[in-house]
Amino acid sequence: MTPQQEKIGTYPFVAEPFHCDFRGRLTLGVLGNHLLNCAGFHATDRGFGIATLNESNYTWVLSRLAIELTDLPRSYEPFTVQTWVENVYRLFTDRNFALLNAQGEPIGYARSVWAMINLETRKPADLLTLHEGKIVDYIANAPCPIEKPSRIKVSGTQPAATLTAKYSDIDINGHFNSIRYIEHILDLFPLDLYRQRPIRRFEMAYVAESYFGDTIQFFVEEQADGTVCVEVRKLEGDVVCRSKMVWGEPYAAE
Amino acid sequence: MTPQQEKIGTYPFVAEPFHCDFRGRLTLGVLGNHLLNCAGFHATDRGFGIATLNESNYTWVLSRLAIELTDLPRSYEPFTVQTWVENVYRLFTDRNFALLNAQGEPIGYARSVWAMINLETRKPADLLTLHEGKIVDYIANAPCPIEKPSRIKVSGTQPAATLTAKYSDIDINGHFNSIRYIEHILDLFPLDLYRQRPIRRFEMAYVAESYFGDTIQFFVEEQADGTVCVEVRKLEGDVVCRSKMVWGEPYAAE
Repeated sequence: MTPQQEKIGTYPFVAEPFHCDFRGRLTLGVLGNHLLNCAGFHATDRGFGIATLNESNYTWVLSRLAIELTDLPRSYEPFTVQTWVENVYRLFTDRNFALLNAQGEPIGYARSVWAMINLETRKPADLLTLHEGKIVDYIANAPCPIEKPSRIKVSGTQPAATLTAKYSDIDINGHFNSIRYIEHILDLFPLDLYRQRPIRRFEMAYVAESYFGDTIQFFVEEQADGTVCVEVRKLEGDVVCRSKMVWGEPYAAE
Repeated sequence: MTPQQEKIGTYPFVAEPFHCDFRGRLTLGVLGNHLLNCAGFHATDRGFGIATLNESNYTWVLSRLAIELTDLPRSYEPFTVQTWVENVYRLFTDRNFALLNAQGEPIGYARSVWAMINLETRKPADLLTLHEGKIVDYIANAPCPIEKPSRIKVSGTQPAATLTAKYSDIDINGHFNSIRYIEHILDLFPLDLYRQRPIRRFEMAYVAESYFGDTIQFFVEEQADGTVCVEVRKLEGDVVCRSKMVWGEPYAAE
Protein backbone atom coordinates (compact mmCIF):
# COMPACT_ATOMS: atom_id res chain seq x y z
CA MET A 1 0.00 0.00 0.00
CA THR A 2 1.15 3.50 -0.73
CA PRO A 3 0.94 6.02 2.14
CA GLN A 4 -2.03 7.53 0.26
CA GLN A 5 -3.95 4.21 0.23
CA GLU A 6 -3.25 3.66 3.92
CA LYS A 7 -5.17 6.82 4.69
CA ILE A 8 -8.28 5.50 2.96
CA GLY A 9 -10.46 3.12 4.99
CA THR A 10 -12.14 0.32 3.02
CA TYR A 11 -15.11 -1.56 4.50
CA PRO A 12 -16.99 -4.44 2.85
CA PHE A 13 -20.75 -4.98 3.26
CA VAL A 14 -23.56 -7.05 1.87
CA ALA A 15 -27.00 -5.55 1.19
CA GLU A 16 -29.21 -7.39 3.69
CA PRO A 17 -32.70 -8.27 2.44
CA PHE A 18 -34.53 -6.37 5.21
CA HIS A 19 -32.32 -3.35 4.53
CA CYS A 20 -33.63 -3.14 0.98
CA ASP A 21 -36.74 -1.31 -0.16
CA PHE A 22 -39.63 -2.46 -2.35
CA ARG A 23 -37.35 -2.19 -5.40
CA GLY A 24 -34.88 -4.57 -3.75
CA ARG A 25 -32.37 -1.72 -3.45
CA LEU A 26 -30.50 -0.70 -0.31
CA THR A 27 -32.36 2.17 1.36
CA LEU A 28 -30.65 5.54 1.77
CA GLY A 29 -31.18 5.31 5.52
CA VAL A 30 -29.19 2.07 5.71
CA LEU A 31 -26.53 3.49 3.39
CA GLY A 32 -26.31 6.57 5.62
CA ASN A 33 -25.91 4.29 8.66
CA HIS A 34 -23.07 2.42 6.94
CA LEU A 35 -21.35 5.72 6.06
CA LEU A 36 -21.53 6.92 9.67
CA ASN A 37 -20.24 3.57 10.94
CA CYS A 38 -17.33 3.66 8.48
CA ALA A 39 -16.53 7.19 9.64
CA GLY A 40 -16.47 5.77 13.16
CA PHE A 41 -14.27 2.76 12.28
CA HIS A 42 -11.86 4.97 10.35
CA ALA A 43 -11.59 7.58 13.12
CA THR A 44 -11.25 4.91 15.83
CA ASP A 45 -8.39 3.19 13.98
CA ARG A 46 -6.57 6.54 13.97
CA GLY A 47 -7.16 7.49 17.60
CA PHE A 48 -10.02 9.86 16.88
CA GLY A 49 -12.95 7.55 17.65
CA ILE A 50 -15.90 8.39 19.87
CA ALA A 51 -14.71 6.09 22.68
CA THR A 52 -11.27 7.74 22.89
CA LEU A 53 -12.80 11.20 22.54
CA ASN A 54 -15.41 10.58 25.23
CA GLU A 55 -12.61 9.84 27.68
CA SER A 56 -11.43 13.37 27.12
CA ASN A 57 -15.01 14.69 27.07
CA TYR A 58 -15.26 15.29 23.32
CA THR A 59 -17.54 13.83 20.67
CA TRP A 60 -18.08 14.12 16.92
CA VAL A 61 -21.19 15.87 15.65
CA LEU A 62 -22.40 15.37 12.08
CA SER A 63 -23.28 18.68 10.46
CA ARG A 64 -23.77 17.91 6.76
CA LEU A 65 -24.13 14.86 4.56
CA ALA A 66 -24.49 14.78 0.77
CA ILE A 67 -24.82 11.51 -1.15
CA GLU A 68 -24.84 11.18 -4.93
CA LEU A 69 -25.64 7.90 -6.65
CA THR A 70 -25.69 6.35 -10.08
CA ASP A 71 -26.86 3.01 -8.67
CA LEU A 72 -27.63 1.27 -5.37
CA PRO A 73 -26.70 -2.26 -4.25
CA ARG A 74 -29.40 -4.89 -4.71
CA SER A 75 -30.52 -7.36 -2.06
CA TYR A 76 -27.68 -9.82 -1.19
CA GLU A 77 -25.13 -7.89 -3.32
CA PRO A 78 -21.71 -7.18 -1.82
CA PHE A 79 -20.53 -3.57 -1.88
CA THR A 80 -17.73 -1.51 -0.39
CA VAL A 81 -17.55 1.84 1.35
CA GLN A 82 -14.31 3.80 1.27
CA THR A 83 -13.75 6.84 3.42
CA TRP A 84 -11.04 9.41 3.98
CA VAL A 85 -10.48 12.86 5.45
CA GLU A 86 -10.31 15.54 2.76
CA ASN A 87 -9.78 18.71 4.80
CA VAL A 88 -9.34 19.76 8.39
CA TYR A 89 -10.22 23.28 9.47
CA ARG A 90 -10.21 24.72 12.95
CA LEU A 91 -13.86 23.89 13.68
CA PHE A 92 -14.84 21.46 10.91
CA THR A 93 -13.48 18.52 9.00
CA ASP A 94 -14.58 17.27 5.59
CA ARG A 95 -14.85 13.49 5.29
CA ASN A 96 -15.56 11.92 1.90
CA PHE A 97 -16.84 8.50 0.88
CA ALA A 98 -16.94 6.35 -2.23
CA LEU A 99 -19.51 3.58 -2.72
CA LEU A 100 -18.24 0.69 -4.87
CA ASN A 101 -20.36 -2.08 -6.36
CA ALA A 102 -19.52 -5.80 -6.32
CA GLN A 103 -17.17 -5.26 -9.28
CA GLY A 104 -15.31 -2.51 -7.41
CA GLU A 105 -16.69 0.23 -9.66
CA PRO A 106 -17.83 3.50 -8.08
CA ILE A 107 -21.63 3.83 -8.04
CA GLY A 108 -21.77 6.76 -5.64
CA TYR A 109 -19.90 9.28 -3.55
CA ALA A 110 -20.67 11.19 -0.39
CA ARG A 111 -19.36 14.25 1.39
CA SER A 112 -19.79 14.94 5.08
CA VAL A 113 -18.89 17.79 7.41
CA TRP A 114 -18.21 17.15 11.10
CA ALA A 115 -17.48 19.27 14.15
CA MET A 116 -16.08 18.08 17.45
CA ILE A 117 -17.69 19.39 20.59
CA ASN A 118 -16.87 19.39 24.26
CA LEU A 119 -19.53 17.27 25.98
CA GLU A 120 -19.65 19.53 29.04
CA THR A 121 -19.60 22.99 27.51
CA ARG A 122 -21.23 21.88 24.17
CA LYS A 123 -18.70 24.24 22.56
CA PRO A 124 -16.75 23.25 19.44
CA ALA A 125 -13.19 21.99 19.85
CA ASP A 126 -10.23 23.28 17.88
CA LEU A 127 -9.39 20.36 15.57
CA LEU A 128 -5.98 21.77 14.72
CA THR A 129 -4.71 21.64 18.30
CA LEU A 130 -6.51 18.52 19.70
CA HIS A 131 -4.24 15.44 19.95
CA GLU A 132 -1.36 17.72 18.86
CA GLY A 133 -3.20 18.34 15.58
CA LYS A 134 -2.46 14.76 14.46
CA ILE A 135 -5.71 14.64 12.50
CA VAL A 136 -4.06 16.56 9.63
CA ASP A 137 -1.68 13.62 9.11
CA TYR A 138 -4.66 11.61 7.86
CA ILE A 139 -5.69 13.98 5.09
CA ALA A 140 -5.91 12.00 1.86
CA ASN A 141 -6.27 13.14 -1.68
CA ALA A 142 -8.80 10.94 -3.50
CA PRO A 143 -11.42 11.82 -6.12
CA CYS A 144 -14.91 12.72 -4.90
CA PRO A 145 -16.52 14.13 -8.03
CA ILE A 146 -19.72 15.51 -6.45
CA GLU A 147 -20.65 18.98 -5.30
CA LYS A 148 -20.29 20.06 -1.69
CA PRO A 149 -23.40 20.22 0.50
CA SER A 150 -25.40 23.29 -0.51
CA ARG A 151 -27.55 25.81 1.28
CA ILE A 152 -31.14 24.60 1.75
CA LYS A 153 -34.07 26.96 2.21
CA VAL A 154 -37.73 26.12 2.75
CA SER A 155 -40.32 28.80 3.34
CA GLY A 156 -43.50 26.66 3.40
CA THR A 157 -45.90 26.82 6.32
CA GLN A 158 -48.16 23.81 5.60
CA PRO A 159 -46.63 20.62 7.04
CA ALA A 160 -46.74 17.52 4.83
CA ALA A 161 -46.44 15.34 7.94
CA THR A 162 -46.31 15.63 11.71
CA LEU A 163 -44.94 13.05 14.12
CA THR A 164 -43.98 12.62 17.74
CA ALA A 165 -40.49 11.27 18.53
CA LYS A 166 -40.82 7.67 19.79
CA TYR A 167 -38.64 4.97 21.33
CA SER A 168 -37.12 3.83 17.99
CA ASP A 169 -36.23 7.41 17.06
CA ILE A 170 -34.01 8.08 20.07
CA ASP A 171 -30.29 7.28 20.24
CA ILE A 172 -27.95 6.68 23.18
CA ASN A 173 -27.45 10.42 23.66
CA GLY A 174 -31.20 10.89 24.11
CA HIS A 175 -31.34 12.68 20.74
CA PHE A 176 -33.45 11.92 17.71
CA ASN A 177 -31.25 9.51 15.69
CA SER A 178 -29.64 11.19 12.62
CA ILE A 179 -30.54 8.23 10.43
CA ARG A 180 -34.19 8.17 11.51
CA TYR A 181 -34.65 11.71 10.17
CA ILE A 182 -33.57 10.37 6.78
CA GLU A 183 -36.09 7.51 7.01
CA HIS A 184 -38.93 9.82 8.00
CA ILE A 185 -38.06 12.21 5.16
CA LEU A 186 -38.02 9.33 2.64
CA ASP A 187 -41.43 8.27 3.97
CA LEU A 188 -42.96 11.56 2.77
CA PHE A 189 -42.92 10.33 -0.83
CA PRO A 190 -44.98 7.73 -2.73
CA LEU A 191 -43.55 4.47 -4.08
CA ASP A 192 -44.28 5.58 -7.65
CA LEU A 193 -41.75 8.38 -7.35
CA TYR A 194 -39.05 5.92 -6.24
CA ARG A 195 -40.02 3.65 -9.11
CA GLN A 196 -39.97 6.33 -11.82
CA ARG A 197 -37.42 8.87 -10.60
CA PRO A 198 -35.03 7.38 -8.02
CA ILE A 199 -33.04 9.75 -5.82
CA ARG A 200 -29.78 10.74 -7.49
CA ARG A 201 -28.61 13.18 -4.84
CA PHE A 202 -29.63 13.45 -1.20
CA GLU A 203 -28.45 16.07 1.30
CA MET A 204 -28.94 16.49 5.01
CA ALA A 205 -28.09 19.54 7.11
CA TYR A 206 -28.37 18.88 10.84
CA VAL A 207 -29.23 22.10 12.68
CA ALA A 208 -30.49 21.29 16.20
CA GLU A 209 -31.35 18.27 18.32
CA SER A 210 -34.86 17.01 19.06
CA TYR A 211 -35.85 14.69 21.88
CA PHE A 212 -38.30 11.95 22.96
CA GLY A 213 -41.86 13.27 22.91
CA ASP A 214 -41.02 16.26 20.70
CA THR A 215 -43.54 16.84 17.94
CA ILE A 216 -41.76 17.59 14.68
CA GLN A 217 -43.23 18.72 11.38
CA PHE A 218 -42.02 18.15 7.84
CA PHE A 219 -42.33 21.00 5.32
CA VAL A 220 -41.78 20.06 1.68
CA GLU A 221 -41.05 22.49 -1.14
CA GLU A 222 -40.26 21.84 -4.78
CA GLN A 223 -37.70 24.32 -6.13
CA ALA A 224 -37.73 25.97 -9.55
CA ASP A 225 -34.93 23.61 -10.70
CA GLY A 226 -36.98 20.50 -9.80
CA THR A 227 -35.08 19.67 -6.60
CA VAL A 228 -37.23 18.94 -3.56
CA CYS A 229 -36.35 20.47 -0.19
CA VAL A 230 -37.63 19.36 3.21
CA GLU A 231 -37.36 21.29 6.44
CA VAL A 232 -38.04 19.60 9.77
CA ARG A 233 -39.21 21.96 12.49
CA LYS A 234 -40.35 21.64 16.06
CA LEU A 235 -43.89 22.80 16.80
CA GLU A 236 -42.55 26.14 18.00
CA GLY A 237 -40.88 26.62 14.63
CA ASP A 238 -37.22 25.91 15.51
CA VAL A 239 -35.49 24.17 12.63
CA VAL A 240 -34.16 20.67 13.43
CA CYS A 241 -32.73 19.67 10.06
CA ARG A 242 -33.07 20.27 6.35
CA SER A 243 -32.83 17.98 3.35
CA LYS A 244 -32.54 18.41 -0.40
CA MET A 245 -33.27 15.71 -2.94
CA VAL A 246 -32.66 15.46 -6.67
CA TRP A 247 -34.97 12.84 -8.19
CA GLY A 248 -33.47 11.63 -11.47
CA GLU A 249 -33.59 9.10 -14.25
CA PRO A 250 -34.00 5.42 -13.35
CA TYR A 251 -30.72 3.64 -12.51
CA ALA A 252 -28.91 2.44 -15.64
CA ALA A 253 -29.47 -1.28 -15.08
CA GLU A 254 -33.20 -1.01 -14.43
CA MET B 1 -16.25 -30.12 14.96
CA THR B 2 -18.68 -32.84 15.85
CA PRO B 3 -21.50 -33.52 13.37
CA GLN B 4 -23.79 -31.85 15.90
CA GLN B 5 -21.75 -28.62 15.93
CA GLU B 6 -21.64 -28.55 12.14
CA LYS B 7 -25.41 -28.29 12.10
CA ILE B 8 -25.35 -25.13 14.21
CA GLY B 9 -24.61 -21.88 12.37
CA THR B 10 -22.56 -19.30 14.30
CA TYR B 11 -22.52 -15.67 13.19
CA PRO B 12 -20.54 -12.84 14.82
CA PHE B 13 -21.84 -9.25 15.05
CA VAL B 14 -21.03 -5.96 16.70
CA ALA B 15 -23.76 -3.75 18.18
CA GLU B 16 -23.59 -0.68 15.93
CA PRO B 17 -24.16 2.66 17.70
CA PHE B 18 -27.15 3.66 15.55
CA HIS B 19 -28.68 0.22 16.14
CA CYS B 20 -28.81 0.89 19.88
CA ASP B 21 -31.58 2.62 21.75
CA PHE B 22 -31.46 5.45 24.29
CA ARG B 23 -30.10 2.97 26.89
CA GLY B 24 -27.24 2.11 24.56
CA ARG B 25 -28.66 -1.40 24.13
CA LEU B 26 -29.29 -3.16 20.84
CA THR B 27 -32.94 -2.70 19.86
CA LEU B 28 -35.19 -5.73 19.52
CA GLY B 29 -35.93 -4.74 15.93
CA VAL B 30 -32.24 -4.93 15.01
CA LEU B 31 -31.86 -8.19 16.94
CA GLY B 32 -34.86 -9.59 15.06
CA ASN B 33 -33.25 -8.53 11.79
CA HIS B 34 -30.03 -10.32 12.72
CA LEU B 35 -31.97 -13.48 13.63
CA LEU B 36 -33.77 -13.49 10.27
CA ASN B 37 -30.50 -12.88 8.42
CA CYS B 38 -28.83 -15.75 10.30
CA ALA B 39 -31.76 -17.98 9.42
CA GLY B 40 -31.16 -16.98 5.80
CA PHE B 41 -27.37 -17.58 5.92
CA HIS B 42 -27.87 -20.95 7.61
CA ALA B 43 -30.53 -22.10 5.16
CA THR B 44 -28.56 -20.83 2.14
CA ASP B 45 -25.42 -22.72 3.20
CA ARG B 46 -27.52 -25.90 3.26
CA GLY B 47 -29.28 -25.41 -0.07
CA PHE B 48 -32.50 -24.10 1.44
CA GLY B 49 -31.94 -20.37 0.93
CA ILE B 50 -34.43 -17.95 -0.59
CA ALA B 51 -32.40 -17.60 -3.82
CA THR B 52 -32.36 -21.37 -4.44
CA LEU B 53 -36.00 -21.67 -3.42
CA ASN B 54 -37.13 -18.80 -5.64
CA GLU B 55 -35.68 -20.63 -8.64
CA SER B 56 -38.13 -23.42 -7.90
CA ASN B 57 -40.88 -20.88 -7.04
CA TYR B 58 -40.81 -21.37 -3.27
CA THR B 59 -40.07 -19.00 -0.43
CA TRP B 60 -39.85 -19.09 3.36
CA VAL B 61 -42.55 -17.34 5.37
CA LEU B 62 -42.00 -16.45 9.02
CA SER B 63 -44.98 -17.42 11.12
CA ARG B 64 -43.85 -17.04 14.75
CA LEU B 65 -40.94 -15.52 16.63
CA ALA B 66 -40.33 -15.60 20.40
CA ILE B 67 -37.26 -13.98 21.95
CA GLU B 68 -36.28 -14.23 25.61
CA LEU B 69 -33.47 -12.15 27.08
CA THR B 70 -31.48 -11.77 30.27
CA ASP B 71 -29.37 -9.00 28.73
CA LEU B 72 -28.81 -7.15 25.46
CA PRO B 73 -25.49 -6.17 23.81
CA ARG B 74 -24.32 -2.62 24.46
CA SER B 75 -23.15 -0.19 21.80
CA TYR B 76 -19.88 -1.40 20.14
CA GLU B 77 -20.05 -4.78 21.98
CA PRO B 78 -19.40 -7.94 19.95
CA PHE B 79 -22.02 -10.67 20.20
CA THR B 80 -22.84 -13.93 18.45
CA VAL B 81 -26.01 -15.48 17.09
CA GLN B 82 -26.25 -19.26 16.80
CA THR B 83 -29.05 -20.93 14.92
CA TRP B 84 -30.19 -24.46 14.17
CA VAL B 85 -33.22 -26.44 13.02
CA GLU B 86 -35.00 -28.13 15.90
CA ASN B 87 -37.91 -29.87 14.17
CA VAL B 88 -39.31 -30.35 10.71
CA TYR B 89 -42.98 -31.12 10.20
CA ARG B 90 -44.88 -31.43 6.96
CA LEU B 91 -45.93 -27.76 6.84
CA PHE B 92 -43.72 -26.06 9.43
CA THR B 93 -40.19 -26.08 10.73
CA ASP B 94 -38.96 -24.90 14.12
CA ARG B 95 -35.71 -22.92 14.04
CA ASN B 96 -34.03 -21.93 17.30
CA PHE B 97 -31.43 -19.30 18.16
CA ALA B 98 -29.01 -18.55 20.98
CA LEU B 99 -27.66 -15.05 21.63
CA LEU B 100 -24.17 -15.03 23.17
CA ASN B 101 -22.42 -12.03 24.72
CA ALA B 102 -18.79 -11.02 24.10
CA GLN B 103 -17.67 -13.66 26.62
CA GLY B 104 -19.59 -16.38 24.76
CA GLU B 105 -22.19 -16.70 27.51
CA PRO B 106 -25.85 -17.08 26.55
CA ILE B 107 -27.85 -13.90 27.23
CA GLY B 108 -30.90 -14.89 25.25
CA TYR B 109 -32.67 -17.50 23.16
CA ALA B 110 -35.26 -17.38 20.42
CA ARG B 111 -37.67 -19.76 18.78
CA SER B 112 -39.16 -19.30 15.32
CA VAL B 113 -41.67 -21.16 13.20
CA TRP B 114 -41.49 -21.05 9.40
CA ALA B 115 -43.58 -22.35 6.53
CA MET B 116 -42.54 -22.65 2.92
CA ILE B 117 -44.99 -21.50 0.30
CA ASN B 118 -45.30 -21.80 -3.43
CA LEU B 119 -44.97 -18.28 -4.86
CA GLU B 120 -47.56 -18.90 -7.57
CA THR B 121 -50.27 -20.75 -5.69
CA ARG B 122 -49.41 -19.18 -2.26
CA LYS B 123 -50.04 -22.69 -0.89
CA PRO B 124 -47.71 -24.27 1.68
CA ALA B 125 -45.10 -26.74 0.47
CA ASP B 126 -44.54 -30.18 2.01
CA LEU B 127 -41.18 -29.79 3.76
CA LEU B 128 -40.74 -33.53 4.12
CA THR B 129 -40.72 -34.16 0.37
CA LEU B 130 -39.07 -30.97 -0.99
CA HIS B 131 -35.39 -31.49 -2.00
CA GLU B 132 -35.91 -35.20 -1.21
CA GLY B 133 -36.65 -34.23 2.39
CA LYS B 134 -32.97 -33.33 2.93
CA ILE B 135 -33.95 -30.64 5.43
CA VAL B 136 -34.36 -33.31 8.16
CA ASP B 137 -30.61 -34.05 7.88
CA TYR B 138 -29.97 -30.64 9.45
CA ILE B 139 -31.98 -31.16 12.60
CA ALA B 140 -29.75 -30.41 15.59
CA ASN B 141 -30.26 -31.02 19.24
CA ALA B 142 -29.14 -28.00 21.25
CA PRO B 143 -30.61 -26.39 24.37
CA CYS B 144 -33.19 -23.64 23.93
CA PRO B 145 -34.58 -23.24 27.45
CA ILE B 146 -37.49 -20.92 26.65
CA GLU B 147 -41.15 -21.61 26.08
CA LYS B 148 -42.62 -22.05 22.61
CA PRO B 149 -44.55 -19.16 21.07
CA SER B 150 -47.93 -18.97 22.77
CA ARG B 151 -51.43 -18.09 21.69
CA ILE B 152 -52.08 -14.33 21.76
CA LYS B 153 -55.54 -12.82 22.10
CA VAL B 154 -56.55 -9.16 22.15
CA SER B 155 -60.17 -8.10 22.35
CA GLY B 156 -59.74 -4.30 22.64
CA THR B 157 -61.49 -1.96 20.26
CA GLN B 158 -59.74 1.37 21.03
CA PRO B 159 -56.53 1.70 18.99
CA ALA B 160 -53.46 3.02 20.83
CA ALA B 161 -51.98 4.13 17.50
CA THR B 162 -52.90 4.29 13.83
CA LEU B 163 -50.47 4.58 10.93
CA THR B 164 -50.33 4.34 7.18
CA ALA B 165 -47.73 2.03 5.61
CA LYS B 166 -44.97 4.15 4.04
CA TYR B 167 -41.88 3.70 1.85
CA SER B 168 -39.60 2.53 4.69
CA ASP B 169 -42.17 -0.04 5.83
CA ILE B 170 -42.31 -1.96 2.54
CA ASP B 171 -39.96 -4.81 1.60
CA ILE B 172 -38.93 -6.25 -1.77
CA ASN B 173 -42.08 -8.39 -1.90
CA GLY B 174 -44.25 -5.29 -1.60
CA HIS B 175 -45.25 -6.38 1.91
CA PHE B 176 -44.97 -4.53 5.19
CA ASN B 177 -41.51 -5.54 6.48
CA SER B 178 -41.68 -8.09 9.37
CA ILE B 179 -39.10 -6.14 11.36
CA ARG B 180 -40.88 -2.81 10.97
CA TYR B 181 -43.94 -4.23 12.76
CA ILE B 182 -41.65 -4.91 15.72
CA GLU B 183 -40.32 -1.34 15.64
CA HIS B 184 -43.81 0.17 15.45
CA ILE B 185 -44.98 -2.04 18.34
CA LEU B 186 -41.98 -0.99 20.47
CA ASP B 187 -42.83 2.64 19.66
CA LEU B 188 -46.17 2.28 21.49
CA PHE B 189 -44.40 2.43 24.87
CA PRO B 190 -42.71 5.26 26.81
CA LEU B 191 -38.96 5.39 27.49
CA ASP B 192 -39.60 5.10 31.23
CA LEU B 193 -40.98 1.62 30.79
CA TYR B 194 -37.81 0.52 28.92
CA ARG B 195 -35.74 2.12 31.66
CA GLN B 196 -37.56 0.52 34.59
CA ARG B 197 -38.84 -2.77 33.21
CA PRO B 198 -36.94 -3.88 30.09
CA ILE B 199 -38.54 -6.47 27.84
CA ARG B 200 -37.64 -9.98 28.99
CA ARG B 201 -39.74 -11.86 26.44
CA PHE B 202 -41.10 -10.69 23.10
CA GLU B 203 -43.32 -12.69 20.76
CA MET B 204 -44.59 -12.05 17.26
CA ALA B 205 -47.27 -14.00 15.40
CA TYR B 206 -47.51 -13.02 11.73
CA VAL B 207 -51.04 -13.59 10.46
CA ALA B 208 -51.58 -11.71 7.17
CA GLU B 209 -49.70 -9.29 4.91
CA SER B 210 -50.33 -5.56 4.70
CA TYR B 211 -49.25 -3.28 1.88
CA PHE B 212 -48.15 0.27 0.97
CA GLY B 213 -50.87 2.76 1.81
CA ASP B 214 -52.73 0.37 4.14
CA THR B 215 -53.86 1.97 7.36
CA ILE B 216 -53.11 -0.28 10.31
CA GLN B 217 -54.13 0.09 13.93
CA PHE B 218 -52.45 -1.08 17.11
CA PHE B 219 -54.61 -2.44 19.94
CA VAL B 220 -52.88 -2.87 23.29
CA GLU B 221 -54.14 -4.99 26.16
CA GLU B 222 -52.55 -5.78 29.50
CA GLN B 223 -53.30 -9.32 30.64
CA ALA B 224 -54.12 -10.45 34.15
CA ASP B 225 -50.58 -11.92 34.48
CA GLY B 226 -48.97 -8.55 33.64
CA THR B 227 -47.97 -9.46 30.08
CA VAL B 228 -48.86 -6.91 27.42
CA CYS B 229 -50.44 -8.02 24.16
CA VAL B 230 -50.67 -6.01 20.95
CA GLU B 231 -52.85 -6.80 17.97
CA VAL B 232 -52.28 -5.03 14.65
CA ARG B 233 -55.38 -4.82 12.48
CA LYS B 234 -56.28 -3.27 9.16
CA LEU B 235 -59.01 -0.65 9.20
CA GLU B 236 -61.56 -3.28 8.16
CA GLY B 237 -60.57 -5.34 11.20
CA ASP B 238 -58.49 -8.10 9.57
CA VAL B 239 -55.66 -9.12 11.89
CA VAL B 240 -52.16 -8.53 10.47
CA CYS B 241 -50.01 -9.67 13.39
CA ARG B 242 -50.01 -10.09 17.14
CA SER B 243 -47.35 -9.55 19.77
CA LYS B 244 -46.90 -10.41 23.42
CA MET B 245 -44.38 -8.78 25.75
CA VAL B 246 -43.19 -9.60 29.23
CA TRP B 247 -41.67 -6.52 30.86
CA GLY B 248 -39.37 -7.62 33.66
CA GLU B 249 -36.69 -6.65 36.10
CA PRO B 250 -33.79 -4.45 34.89
CA TYR B 251 -30.94 -6.38 33.26
CA ALA B 252 -28.52 -7.70 35.85
CA ALA B 253 -25.59 -5.47 34.95
CA GLU B 254 -27.55 -2.22 35.03
